[in-house]
Amino acid sequence: MTDGPYAALEARFRRIAIIDGAQAVLHWDRAVMMPPGGADARTEQLAVLSGLSHELIVEPAIGDLLDRVEADRDRLGPWQAANLREMRRLWRHANALSQDLVEALARAASTCELNWRQARAADDFASVLPSLENLIGLVREKAQAKATALDVPPYEALLDAYDPGRRRAEIDRLFAELRSFLPSILSAVLARQSRRSAPMPFDGPLPIEAQRRLGEALMTAVGFDTEFGRLDVSHHPFTGGVPDDVRITTRYKDDDFSESVMAVLHETGHALYERGLPAAWRWQPVGESRGMTIHESQSLLIEMQACRGRQFSEFALPIIKSSFGKSGPAWTLENLLAHTQRVEPGLIRVEADEVTYPFHVMLRYDLETALLQGDLRPRDLPGAWRDGMMKLLGIAVPDDRDGCMQDIHWFHGDIGYFPTYTLGALAAAQLFAAAVAAVPDIPERIRRGDFRPLLGWLREHVHGVGCLSSSDDLLERATGTGLGTEAFRRHVERRYLS
Amino acid sequence: MTDGPYAALEARFRRIAIIDGAQAVLHWDRAVMMPPGGADARTEQLAVLSGLSHELIVEPAIGDLLDRVEADRDRLGPWQAANLREMRRLWRHANALSQDLVEALARAASTCELNWRQARAADDFASVLPSLENLIGLVREKAQAKATALDVPPYEALLDAYDPGRRRAEIDRLFAELRSFLPSILSAVLARQSRRSAPMPFDGPLPIEAQRRLGEALMTAVGFDTEFGRLDVSHHPFTGGVPDDVRITTRYKDDDFSESVMAVLHETGHALYERGLPAAWRWQPVGESRGMTIHESQSLLIEMQACRGRQFSEFALPIIKSSFGKSGPAWTLENLLAHTQRVEPGLIRVEADEVTYPFHVMLRYDLETALLQGDLRPRDLPGAWRDGMMKLLGIAVPDDRDGCMQDIHWFHGDIGYFPTYTLGALAAAQLFAAAVAAVPDIPERIRRGDFRPLLGWLREHVHGVGCLSSSDDLLERATGTGLGTEAFRRHVERRYLS
Repeated sequence: MTDGPYAALEARFRRIAIIDGAQAVLHWDRAVMMPPGGADARTEQLAVLSGLSHELIVEPAIGDLLDRVEADRDRLGPWQAANLREMRRLWRHANALSQDLVEALARAASTCELNWRQARAADDFASVLPSLENLIGLVREKAQAKATALDVPPYEALLDAYDPGRRRAEIDRLFAELRSFLPSILSAVLARQSRRSAPMPFDGPLPIEAQRRLGEALMTAVGFDTEFGRLDVSHHPFTGGVPDDVRITTRYKDDDFSESVMAVLHETGHALYERGLPAAWRWQPVGESRGMTIHESQSLLIEMQACRGRQFSEFALPIIKSSFGKSGPAWTLENLLAHTQRVEPGLIRVEADEVTYPFHVMLRYDLETALLQGDLRPRDLPGAWRDGMMKLLGIAVPDDRDGCMQDIHWFHGDIGYFPTYTLGALAAAQLFAAAVAAVPDIPERIRRGDFRPLLGWLREHVHGVGCLSSSDDLLERATGTGLGTEAFRRHVERRYLS
Repeated sequence: MTDGPYAALEARFRRIAIIDGAQAVLHWDRAVMMPPGGADARTEQLAVLSGLSHELIVEPAIGDLLDRVEADRDRLGPWQAANLREMRRLWRHANALSQDLVEALARAASTCELNWRQARAADDFASVLPSLENLIGLVREKAQAKATALDVPPYEALLDAYDPGRRRAEIDRLFAELRSFLPSILSAVLARQSRRSAPMPFDGPLPIEAQRRLGEALMTAVGFDTEFGRLDVSHHPFTGGVPDDVRITTRYKDDDFSESVMAVLHETGHALYERGLPAAWRWQPVGESRGMTIHESQSLLIEMQACRGRQFSEFALPIIKSSFGKSGPAWTLENLLAHTQRVEPGLIRVEADEVTYPFHVMLRYDLETALLQGDLRPRDLPGAWRDGMMKLLGIAVPDDRDGCMQDIHWFHGDIGYFPTYTLGALAAAQLFAAAVAAVPDIPERIRRGDFRPLLGWLREHVHGVGCLSSSDDLLERATGTGLGTEAFRRHVERRYLS
């Protein structure tokens, strides 16, 4: 079916996707290039474009076309059928909320985020509480409205926007498994680590320009093509832009290169996914990435599975040394790994290693589901956070700044996002193990700086399939099983305990 | 009148202006940041956004609202009335052309530009001729359609998009005056210059980074605030972005700093105009710049009138010397001026000095009016160009690459733009003379690097009035007379012959 109502839908969603692509470039520019004085104008530009995009999807004509094509869906090929399914999903999300609620949410999120920035700087949770209460109230309304539209429970309705089709029961099962083995692994890793000497600091100077060139050299080795993307600097590393023009960022410290380089490699994983999305389905829902769990699996596969491993480190070490013109005791393979594989329970999620990271996510998952259900009041967040950090990681939280106010998510109204970080880590381990099982040469090729076998496997099993199936189906086809914790457990044991 | 149909018009045109602002940022990004692989996606983004912007202005509701407000225009204040006039003008332009013609023009312009790039590289005019003939045919259709809609002759209808309200009779009169005195001035200048020794080359190295910092220092001195803008690099210098986020560019050569710095100062003139537009009328037609003649007057006022003058050079010289750590015979005030005030007839418009530049423009004006009237066939362009260059500047044109194919304008379908370069030069001289007459201290303050008196005068008389009046009214109010050649003649005589 290449004409008639289906073609009309493709034309409309194509237009929406292109407007969204324009917004992605403007978001990148805001974070990377825009002078401070341009903030108000940019806010207006983004508001108008997202309004236009929303108007185009809620047009009554779209609903009519979806009904007509669905009634005749047997005539569609598999990609078209998947495209139709994704269109309906996007349509349901867009139509679930009244214009009033959308606007109230946008205002409340903007206000709360602003208050959060000040409250966090002043370590004054009370000052952000009223706007947080207001925002969480609206998010609960939104969850209820989407729950009705999608016919799933409220938390899953929010989750669906980030990780389509994900169910709480799966998350609960996976997190329960993690809780069953990860604490004892963590204890063993810490005990083992404490018997070694601490990593030796890298002796400076480590000029930013040399770090930048090092990052570019390594991201190119991994497969990022600067013909179709850029590397720049921003406050927090991120991946933006569009599939044929992927913009990644990192940030630099004078006295450490490993953080900037690992951020580059993490974002390169995201970028390779975007680049590898099916070109024949550009600007169609089915040609988009398959949600945040799979997206995070690709960044963590490249960063955690591949680039923090011994093989890649052997390849990278001489490049690192020559980048800074260094040699000597700090610049050995073992000391590099002592840095990049260091495990250390800490207060801050974004600084956490892969062993402690899931505890940060599980805490947030517990709290945000309780917030949404009304079992936890926003005013009780600081206490619940302290209790949780003590219980999960044995850490006393000294203040709310580095406690429940450390992440922007809730203060921007984003509930349902956090689990995807850890689901992504599980998927990364599972996909990497499957890739190595299918192409046993992969680790050895990585040792020589050759990512083509790995990338070829990912292109075929992950990147190139877009939204053809659900993320669980994707994993099942690629790895033989649905999402589980086994590969992650084996990975952590092998890397940190063998 | 702040509600009802007038307010509805403001809301609609605000949305259009914001979409156009988003496009401006995306255009800048394409020229400055975008990796080559992003070209197709960007073309789609810009096409969709310009389509949306066009759809919003041709909506029947806008025509109805304009009729209603015009019927009741006595209730409008002066800014509102001017805003209404500009809205109607934009509406007339947008509604003049059928959707078919707009699309045919976009395709023909894109094809011809592509062919032109190859034809120019190969010096093969014949290979671009078919697509140029097609494009010029469509431009003639467009001119005819706009002529009907605006009730002016076809060439003026095209001109109106760049320099609203401009009439051919004025251009003909001004250009005739230039033809009457400029050739003899040029001869005298060349004779005088030939009695001096040639400028001494600046001894390198002149590192790009030092040139960049020098450009930033000088643009800041002139009044560019990097809180509201950026300086970057592109193939051709330009000014883009939006008034609160102005993006200017330059380009660098290893062996000469004056070209990059003068381009920065030229674009700074454009940027100061954008920054100074009336903030109370942001995103409204009356708050926009008053066409290309006035825009070019601001860049040329800063570059030609102020910064290539002796006073600014005295201020800049020590900064230039310390930027490169230089001293010696090439780094004197007289040698700097010998470079920045050099007059030399040449083949290329964009490299021309201010004395020979008008000849380049007059040639293009003669040829493009003849093309539009059908008095000159595209196939006869190369010959007509050679004849014209010989007659106007006494230069034999060796090939079409640096002859009639040197500029992109016609090959992109832009007819009616060229005169504004020279009208802008005349306006620049007239405005600068008026500013100095009103504030005699201006040259002395520029000698000390203090542009505030000049900028204050420009803000009041040019920048801050937006589109409140026509460009001729603006000039008349600011300088006491309509656009003329007298100030330009006096400027050239004083700078080059006294």
